[in-house]
Amino acid sequence: MYCFNNDYSEAAHPQIMDALLNAAQEQNTGYSMDEHSRHARERIKKEIKNEEADIHFLVGGTQTNLLVISAALRPHQAVVAAESGHINVHETGAIESTGHKVLFQTAKDGKLTPALIQASLDWHIDEHMVQPKMVYISNSTEVGTQYRLAELEALSAFCREKGLYLFLDGARLGAALTSPVNDLTMADIARLTDVFYIGGTKNGALFGEALVITHPALKPDFRFMMKQKGAMLAKGFLLGIQFETLFQNNLFYAMAAHSNRMAGFLREAFLECKVPLATDSQTNQQFPILPKTLIAKLRENYQFQDFEPYDETSTVVRFVTSWATKEEAVHEFVKDFKKLYQNG
Amino acid sequence: MYCFNNDYSEAAHPQIMDALLNAAQEQNTGYSMDEHSRHARERIKKEIKNEEADIHFLVGGTQTNLLVISAALRPHQAVVAAESGHINVHETGAIESTGHKVLFQTAKDGKLTPALIQASLDWHIDEHMVQPKMVYISNSTEVGTQYRLAELEALSAFCREKGLYLFLDGARLGAALTSPVNDLTMADIARLTDVFYIGGTKNGALFGEALVITHPALKPDFRFMMKQKGAMLAKGFLLGIQFETLFQNNLFYAMAAHSNRMAGFLREAFLECKVPLATDSQTNQQFPILPKTLIAKLRENYQFQDFEPYDETSTVVRFVTSWATKEEAVHEFVKDFKKLYQNG
Amino acid sequence: MYCFNNDYSEAAHPQIMDALLNAAQEQNTGYSMDEHSRHARERIKKEIKNEEADIHFLVGGTQTNLLVISAALRPHQAVVAAESGHINVHETGAIESTGHKVLFQTAKDGKLTPALIQASLDWHIDEHMVQPKMVYISNSTEVGTQYRLAELEALSAFCREKGLYLFLDGARLGAALTSPVNDLTMADIARLTDVFYIGGTKNGALFGEALVITHPALKPDFRFMMKQKGAMLAKGFLLGIQFETLFQNNLFYAMAAHSNRMAGFLREAFLECKVPLATDSQTNQQFPILPKTLIAKLRENYQFQDFEPYDETSTVVRFVTSWATKEEAVHEFVKDFKKLYQNG
Amino acid sequence: MYCFNNDYSEAAHPQIMDALLNAAQEQNTGYSMDEHSRHARERIKKEIKNEEADIHFLVGGTQTNLLVISAALRPHQAVVAAESGHINVHETGAIESTGHKVLFQTAKDGKLTPALIQASLDWHIDEHMVQPKMVYISNSTEVGTQYRLAELEALSAFCREKGLYLFLDGARLGAALTSPVNDLTMADIARLTDVFYIGGTKNGALFGEALVITHPALKPDFRFMMKQKGAMLAKGFLLGIQFETLFQNNLFYAMAAHSNRMAGFLREAFLECKVPLATDSQTNQQFPILPKTLIAKLRENYQFQDFEPYDETSTVVRFVTSWATKEEAVHEFVKDFKKLYQNG
Repeated sequence: MYCFNNDYSEAAHPQIMDALLNAAQEQNTGYSMDEHSRHARERIKKEIKNEEADIHFLVGGTQTNLLVISAALRPHQAVVAAESGHINVHETGAIESTGHKVLFQTAKDGKLTPALIQASLDWHIDEHMVQPKMVYISNSTEVGTQYRLAELEALSAFCREKGLYLFLDGARLGAALTSPVNDLTMADIARLTDVFYIGGTKNGALFGEALVITHPALKPDFRFMMKQKGAMLAKGFLLGIQFETLFQNNLFYAMAAHSNRMAGFLREAFLECKVPLATDSQTNQQFPILPKTLIAKLRENYQFQDFEPYDETSTVVRFVTSWATKEEAVHEFVKDFKKLYQNG
Repeated sequence: MYCFNNDYSEAAHPQIMDALLNAAQEQNTGYSMDEHSRHARERIKKEIKNEEADIHFLVGGTQTNLLVISAALRPHQAVVAAESGHINVHETGAIESTGHKVLFQTAKDGKLTPALIQASLDWHIDEHMVQPKMVYISNSTEVGTQYRLAELEALSAFCREKGLYLFLDGARLGAALTSPVNDLTMADIARLTDVFYIGGTKNGALFGEALVITHPALKPDFRFMMKQKGAMLAKGFLLGIQFETLFQNNLFYAMAAHSNRMAGFLREAFLECKVPLATDSQTNQQFPILPKTLIAKLRENYQFQDFEPYDETSTVVRFVTSWATKEEAVHEFVKDFKKLYQNG
Repeated sequence: MYCFNNDYSEAAHPQIMDALLNAAQEQNTGYSMDEHSRHARERIKKEIKNEEADIHFLVGGTQTNLLVISAALRPHQAVVAAESGHINVHETGAIESTGHKVLFQTAKDGKLTPALIQASLDWHIDEHMVQPKMVYISNSTEVGTQYRLAELEALSAFCREKGLYLFLDGARLGAALTSPVNDLTMADIARLTDVFYIGGTKNGALFGEALVITHPALKPDFRFMMKQKGAMLAKGFLLGIQFETLFQNNLFYAMAAHSNRMAGFLREAFLECKVPLATDSQTNQQFPILPKTLIAKLRENYQFQDFEPYDETSTVVRFVTSWATKEEAVHEFVKDFKKLYQNG
Repeated sequence: MYCFNNDYSEAAHPQIMDALLNAAQEQNTGYSMDEHSRHARERIKKEIKNEEADIHFLVGGTQTNLLVISAALRPHQAVVAAESGHINVHETGAIESTGHKVLFQTAKDGKLTPALIQASLDWHIDEHMVQPKMVYISNSTEVGTQYRLAELEALSAFCREKGLYLFLDGARLGAALTSPVNDLTMADIARLTDVFYIGGTKNGALFGEALVITHPALKPDFRFMMKQKGAMLAKGFLLGIQFETLFQNNLFYAMAAHSNRMAGFLREAFLECKVPLATDSQTNQQFPILPKTLIAKLRENYQFQDFEPYDETSTVVRFVTSWATKEEAVHEFVKDFKKLYQNG
């Protein structure tokens, strides 16, 4: 049984584990005030070409999302997201729990545009309604798509004109930046957003997200917010060690590239078989629309998740690859899939 | 320079690291629905002699505190703590952030009693004031002291009579249960409280707390709360693996006992030198009152924290030992201390 | 210039003012513990045919909505509303401010159905999403429509089957219950919902809403919640006096019936002129779709609000009548309207 | 039975009632955008000698307190109050409900000083603790005392130096400003604080508090906050009419002066009889320490509240006078009191 359920089924890349083991005898200062964390911050600042950014290390994505949004907004302000945005659906009301409404716009490919954000602004015009103040996007998105440079530039310019903070959830930033159709660098991301994060959990770290704050108004007292929300890891050096390692010898990009390459084999197989794809993803998540009978047969040997209903006979399913996905397992799947598909 | 700052300066016990490494090739289900977590829950249920308990694995203490309290209380209800209680002082208003007042009582040794709780009840009598509904205690406490069986029985009986939930913060539960003056078992803790947790972070795990919920009213939908507060680890199996290991071959107790034994050497040295101790701790935290001049000299070779001001010439300082504290380092410190003290 | 902007432009019905004046020399107990409030509660209990209900007097609608919802739900739970629901749009995120997500379904006439609620349930199935626990409806709705007995029975049965609280916002309950197409009594409302309120502010009181709680689980400690949210009026007897008066000699119904009759004249005029109506309202709010040129001309002598854009040349506007609307003013408007419409 | 329970037992001063009646036929714009409110704002601006202030009308004190504090603070920030401060004890955790800790200092006369505030600052020094950012004081205080000009100047200078907002709860501001020992004007209050309010509810209005915001950082978007917390009265013109009247012909001051004069008769009687007073109040609240036997006898004809236990045989009780207190009733009480006291 091989598992394509998600990109957090395996512990961590051996280099990450080695780095943690190497530090096992050290005594480190707590709460991310240690040397590893300092060093990891330096590497990330170099990567994003911004020495002034504030960088904080956090354990997980929902935690990071709720922290950033609740630290940035005043009580009456809201965040605009795509309907499929993680904060809108899959975080059990984490944002609302901190007091803020999530306004959403339906966006078929999971990507916001200036026009969609403008629609939220048009509707929220006085004190009887919440005040949109932040825009939340994900790259790659929850449906595997990604922003191109021109798209992000347009969003960035629009947000700056309207006085909206632009926040990019990078839980799968590695997958986006190493996709064959990517034209963005991490420095572009830092330049065009006000705050974003670099996902470790879904890209080979044991756990961890590196939050990068570039907008000066979002920097003050962020560590207070972290502590208050239970998001300041006592052994913060564990995060420092991991990000130090991720940004050494391009490990971060290498793992994401592997993950995308594995997903590329799946995509090719689906396209070859003329299986319709729900979204045009060139990252590590693939969303084929498969007959329910085929799904049942595939599940005798492979794990993958239902994504959403499609019609009477078909379902949109999700295949996810990771830094740890074995190439031979993918090829075997492709072989099995083609055989079953042609026989189905 | 040897560090007695705290018990979370080192990564994790080698057995913990080994267990994580051994699982590195596995594909595990996410969100603590994996086999390791299931297995760890079984071991803990055996340890507490309660098959009906709900057990959840969390990353850190502040996170666990805010989750338990906000899940248990209705909006107008409050939690009663000792003034020195971690939730009252050192969590940046985490509890208030979820909407609840922390009522506190001054308790010199950091321990609540029925009389102190009654004082809070006496004062809060109608709808113009918050309604006390939960009692928060720590064992060992923030000042290294610990509850005896009779004390915990009295608190438990009182809380049950008054309809108050009793919540025990066990961030340093290992230290309490292996102290020379302890007469409690983990099963006693489970029996006498409504919810408590077993601290891994400060006792040799890489990170993690095991929350044990025994009161039926506190069980429903707890996983929703975890997800909402950003406290559900994607790779929950990392926590499962660690608690599986902690409760194998008594590793949990062995580490805590070592930590206490190391602190015992410090305590003996202080007593021998007739150094006054701010609290009567027989756990891994020691609070001697030292002359400022001596503190300065000690800090040439040792790290430890100021705890609170004492008088013009002296300060209460805190020494903390851990599972990783080296016995030779402690002996060397004792030797140095005695020499400096007698010369001072 | 005559104003059809809303039903809260005028202070209060003379009988209400008289009752307040009559009590001006009294010394009353504070916080709604007075005799007037007790008496008003008795009258309402008789009206709803339920002696066990808890009745609380509040100042305004948003306040009442946020109180009821935050008192009823645990932190991870959500309320389901129509997209046009007041809590979803026009309360500046009041519900989210208390930590709860508002899930909405598009409902053209502003009315929820079991099928729409089921759609929310179908989508929210595990702990990664909020848990729907309450259903919020308004009667009459924000677009002037109203629930029929059969509809409310169906909703009630559905909610009870699914374990959802049914909450009815009655800010304009008078208008609903005196509409020509109404087949509900206030006792039906009390029987079929778990909590609802009787709007005074928009039906001739100076201010005030009477909240009726019938579900036992929603009763405990509600006064604590009121005080905490700043919703317990010091001079609560002012509310008691008003509701005492509203439920004396049918004043509540008489005022609402007048309001509806005035709106009926407007409706007739629109229908006569074959003006399309955006919603089929037989209550005190009318939503004609009017040419922008006509709107401009009408505004030389009448005030009324834009409701929403319709197309290039037309707009949906809202006319609201009240207990204080003068019949001669309505007839004059009708005359003017017909003249302008036929000339336009 | 005459009632000295509080200053909100009676509806409103006849001039207030008349003003409301006079407006009964008007159609006014909603939500405090009406002419009465505009006019009332102008009068208050003149009174405080500050044309730039933002003025908002609210219904009650707890509502105003929670609004001001939650609008001003970021999530990790706290407000410092006297232990007896209304927000600390008697608002059912309203401030905590918005997410903020109330830090308090014991202050025997209910008055904060720079030294007391400094003690809170000294203790809160890093991100593991909340960050004090606002100071809350009441004038007159909850125990009837009041700030002198020099005291308020010292507090103001201190807060400005430390970057703390100074917020003055003026629920009983009238009593303070008309006390025989007062040396403050309302313009002084406006000049020395960042935000304060003028209490109407406890000084002859039907209800209402006028909030005055002078600090520019506290002004933006306050109406959004009001609406979100359910604090924007639909018929806001009712508040406008009342404050228009309160600041016409000095009615506000005249009522408070009457109230203080009535309390002065009580105070004289207590002093004459050598009854100890728990606080040195020269405003409309008096706190004599009376034998329990005497209290019982007095209660045969008078209502007044227990304030706090004193010793085995005595209790601190509270007598409150108001704009409506009848002079003959006070003289009768004094006569009765002296007789009973001398016989006791």
